[in-house]
Amino acid sequence: MEKFIDKIKSPTDLKKLSIEQLNEYADEVRELIINSVEKNGGHLASNLGAVDFVIALHYVFDCPNDKLIFDVGHQAYAHKIITGRKDGFENLRHDNGVSGFVNVTESIYDCCTMGHSSTSLSLGVGFARARKLKNEKYNVVSIIGDGALTGGIAFEALNDIGECKTPMLIVLNDNTMSISKNVGGISKHLSKLRLSKKYVAFKHSLKNGLLAIPFIGKGLSKLTEAIRDSLKNILMRNKIFEDFGIKYLGPFDGHDIKLLVSIFEQAKNYNRPALIHLVTNKGKGSEYAENDPTAYHGVSANKNNVEKLFAKAFSDKLMNIADKNKDIVAITAAMTTGTGLTDFAKKYPDRFFDVGIAEQHAVSFASGLARGGVRPVFAVYSTFLQRAFDEVMTDLCIDSVPVILAIDHSGYVDGDGVTHQGVFDTGYLGMIPNITIMSPKDGEELSNMLDFALKLNSPVAIKYPKSYCESYAIHTPIELGKWETLKTDGETVILANSAKAVEIASQIDGVTVVNARFNKPLDYEVLDTLTNSNILTIEDGMLRGGFGESVLAYLNKKGYNKTFRSIGFDDRFITETENVNAYEKAGLTVENIKTVINNMNKTL
Amino acid sequence: MEKFIDKIKSPTDLKKLSIEQLNEYADEVRELIINSVEKNGGHLASNLGAVDFVIALHYVFDCPNDKLIFDVGHQAYAHKIITGRKDGFENLRHDNGVSGFVNVTESIYDCCTMGHSSTSLSLGVGFARARKLKNEKYNVVSIIGDGALTGGIAFEALNDIGECKTPMLIVLNDNTMSISKNVGGISKHLSKLRLSKKYVAFKHSLKNGLLAIPFIGKGLSKLTEAIRDSLKNILMRNKIFEDFGIKYLGPFDGHDIKLLVSIFEQAKNYNRPALIHLVTNKGKGSEYAENDPTAYHGVSANKNNVEKLFAKAFSDKLMNIADKNKDIVAITAAMTTGTGLTDFAKKYPDRFFDVGIAEQHAVSFASGLARGGVRPVFAVYSTFLQRAFDEVMTDLCIDSVPVILAIDHSGYVDGDGVTHQGVFDTGYLGMIPNITIMSPKDGEELSNMLDFALKLNSPVAIKYPKSYCESYAIHTPIELGKWETLKTDGETVILANSAKAVEIASQIDGVTVVNARFNKPLDYEVLDTLTNSNILTIEDGMLRGGFGESVLAYLNKKGYNKTFRSIGFDDRFITETENVNAYEKAGLTVENIKTVINNMNKTL
Repeated sequence: MEKFIDKIKSPTDLKKLSIEQLNEYADEVRELIINSVEKNGGHLASNLGAVDFVIALHYVFDCPNDKLIFDVGHQAYAHKIITGRKDGFENLRHDNGVSGFVNVTESIYDCCTMGHSSTSLSLGVGFARARKLKNEKYNVVSIIGDGALTGGIAFEALNDIGECKTPMLIVLNDNTMSISKNVGGISKHLSKLRLSKKYVAFKHSLKNGLLAIPFIGKGLSKLTEAIRDSLKNILMRNKIFEDFGIKYLGPFDGHDIKLLVSIFEQAKNYNRPALIHLVTNKGKGSEYAENDPTAYHGVSANKNNVEKLFAKAFSDKLMNIADKNKDIVAITAAMTTGTGLTDFAKKYPDRFFDVGIAEQHAVSFASGLARGGVRPVFAVYSTFLQRAFDEVMTDLCIDSVPVILAIDHSGYVDGDGVTHQGVFDTGYLGMIPNITIMSPKDGEELSNMLDFALKLNSPVAIKYPKSYCESYAIHTPIELGKWETLKTDGETVILANSAKAVEIASQIDGVTVVNARFNKPLDYEVLDTLTNSNILTIEDGMLRGGFGESVLAYLNKKGYNKTFRSIGFDDRFITETENVNAYEKAGLTVENIKTVINNMNKTL
Repeated sequence: MEKFIDKIKSPTDLKKLSIEQLNEYADEVRELIINSVEKNGGHLASNLGAVDFVIALHYVFDCPNDKLIFDVGHQAYAHKIITGRKDGFENLRHDNGVSGFVNVTESIYDCCTMGHSSTSLSLGVGFARARKLKNEKYNVVSIIGDGALTGGIAFEALNDIGECKTPMLIVLNDNTMSISKNVGGISKHLSKLRLSKKYVAFKHSLKNGLLAIPFIGKGLSKLTEAIRDSLKNILMRNKIFEDFGIKYLGPFDGHDIKLLVSIFEQAKNYNRPALIHLVTNKGKGSEYAENDPTAYHGVSANKNNVEKLFAKAFSDKLMNIADKNKDIVAITAAMTTGTGLTDFAKKYPDRFFDVGIAEQHAVSFASGLARGGVRPVFAVYSTFLQRAFDEVMTDLCIDSVPVILAIDHSGYVDGDGVTHQGVFDTGYLGMIPNITIMSPKDGEELSNMLDFALKLNSPVAIKYPKSYCESYAIHTPIELGKWETLKTDGETVILANSAKAVEIASQIDGVTVVNARFNKPLDYEVLDTLTNSNILTIEDGMLRGGFGESVLAYLNKKGYNKTFRSIGFDDRFITETENVNAYEKAGLTVENIKTVINNMNKTL
């Protein structure tokens, strides 16, 4: 018999199914997700937990006219499969397949390209108010996880939505854990709510009660309102949302499609902002994901060689220095595993702080810690640190506070696509006075840089890629603003900034290769000796505002007039989902760089 | 008789006064603030409201051992006067006077340099946890206004503090209005609390009750606890803070020094995070400030010539285009007056959105509005937009969403000091693909640029300074990436980027002056004609990552080898509080640029 998953090409097809068939379809979707993520990597557990309510949403709402806004956009696999991307989903995150996040270039059903946490409420209230101004009719549904709710912008939006008379719906996907664990007051509040005996006992009667009520015209029926109000007396009220002026409904079982369809039907014409609290089981349908959703939050297609990751080198060294120096503390913004802090968290629970998805707070909190005399290391992905740009400037750099930023996923990041690139960090950090920025070529150098960073009494960023690290023989001691010459084999000089650059440059013959491991300050002594050399800079980042531009600006002041070229990423967003093409398109390949150097020498 | 204000040189002196004398001293402090702000400009109303509780804080706590962390740092005038800066305060915000914000270089009593909103809780919990790790003893008090509480990072911190067993004190200075007005759910909650009849009736009994209780050892006494608990039954509980896991105490009269001393004494040894809610009267002691605290939030020393401000030109043009185009909506993050939106807000209340101090939300909300078909203009100061760097990239630029960023206070900002400079915007915006960035030379050009921006279907930033604008005769039509030649009077070419640069360049004879009004994209056609010219770029911003660097990078690709120089701000924070020195130090003067050009011509 043909499977539903082969027949459903759009939400219109979905609407023809019965509730029972929707359940079968949900199982098929889960199976496809498991198989595809096994093969291609991706976010497993969170997506499995979202399948049922996403099906119910598409069953009730009419997309693309209605707007479904998936926060982060990494829990939208079912949405992709329902909206005609089943075939592309089989090559998830690879060229010719769909991306891992919602993306406007991929489908008219994706109304915003998403990737960074906690923005769906702001986008949603934007749509909702535009609808009113344009006098149009459609529904706006923002779908947000409990983890994303800790991000400050979500709070800013909640606070604004409280003012808003325009209806919009917030679906809170409460899977009882964010990427690592849930932290903070909001989390405690939600879990209290979930665990209350009253809620458990009440779940079934609620279901039956709501389902028995036919959908009557606009808004919640009087009867439903009455039931809901009495529910409030039974349940602990979710005061936080009500305090914000947002109608709270829940908690409901996020896997009961029949119940969900009924709730969404009734909520969709509600005449003010409302939040529907769904409790879901992260990893539903996959035994291993269900049992260890953190490990399976993000699944890499290639699970080997974890030992060789930069993150592992960081982790090992951090443990080593923390053993010796009690002042060292570590901070993560809900990325304990991803940033290599798992061991640290276990061994030093008192010196480890997971602040939730809250990069701004993480940086200013680190500033307070450092001013208080300890030595904080904030481990964070390059792309997420963008959110704390202002705090790095204001709370770390103005007073030159000794905080170490351990920036993982710097440079090109394969797999996650346009929203997760770490190519901007030389630019946005480099423009800030008082910060020192380093890029290690390998794990041992990363380790040496951590030792060095601890000796500085000022903010330091050490940035390294997601990828595995080569291991080089040469390791000269780290000194402030001192680069390292790896080989002297020709008049043309390659200034290789970043591990990727060193990896490429090492394979070029007939050139001098400098490991330009300080992005800031530059090695002015070395540059002063190069005013008569042709120079090629290579960086794993954007050219605009990047390493090469800062080198050229310095050389120009010194009267430099030889041939200077820079290789890095041009001024466009990197949309490629796998690494080969992105580096190739940017010319970050041995072959291209050989050609560039040949051309440079011709112009001599 | 000698005034107290002349005798108090430090908090130690303050502690010798009686409560009655403290009240007299408070009046003297208010008088000094009013006189100094009249003369020098500054934040009047907010500081007048804070005098009484700041005195009480210094009376009870022992600074600098105890840490007082003033959010934003602009309500700390009384703190400055108490901590030995009375004389410097007479030249507030001017060279040889104190700065308008707390600043570590100014006093050991300032434990963090502050200036941007909502970070005091993060810094506070950092200190508090460091104290525990270092096994030290001191009190941490974060003082935050109700307006600052809407900033996302404050929420991130509250959420984290809810986890924290380490004691810290949050003093909520609820003056019932932020810079413009208070917005959102939190604000409604606070005002409900203040207005409750029970609170009013209860205020006096509370005072008497608390004051009758002697301070008994550590923590709140049993008796006090009991009283407080019963208060909770009388008062509406402030559930939001309690939901976060933070002990809530209040509301109390923020001007009753006797009461405040008693409350702080008892709270200071409390063994968990607590928030003390003070209701204050913004502008207390100054009749005009009390009656119109918005107008007197920030007082400029020179109130003339408002007509000639860039902000006025923006305001006039926005009204003009909004009359014709109903799709135009305006957004502010609690800066209605400062950004010139007062008229718009009055005339188009349905198309005007003040989202509170919430720049991240403002940008993503604007993205949603634009995707929904309207044309949002977000008017914001350059320095505050830094906080939304990630949202500009992710929610505006990746999908190329047509939002207009009207960036005021771009470039050097006099008066406000190190935390308020708008010199980074060419860098942090310029590195983002898909954005168009313009810098008008005068009000008429700003107006033309707004017309032009509306024709583009992509994100646009128009950035202009705080200062008055000159008015130039030449106004060529705005075309994408096209600069404007102002005069052709010599072989050396000045590319003048920003109003300040054009103002200077126009005064130089014997040069060609181009109004390089597009920071991005550059005018590549013009640059292609300049490969044989000596070029000087002038910009009102940081050189690192700035306009000059991007011009040089392009020219270098074209084989340029003439003399190229850039004038702008070097890689250090700008600490000057008044404008003359900062521009002089950076060489942004007619005289210096004449010298630079002479030297350039010598090297020909």
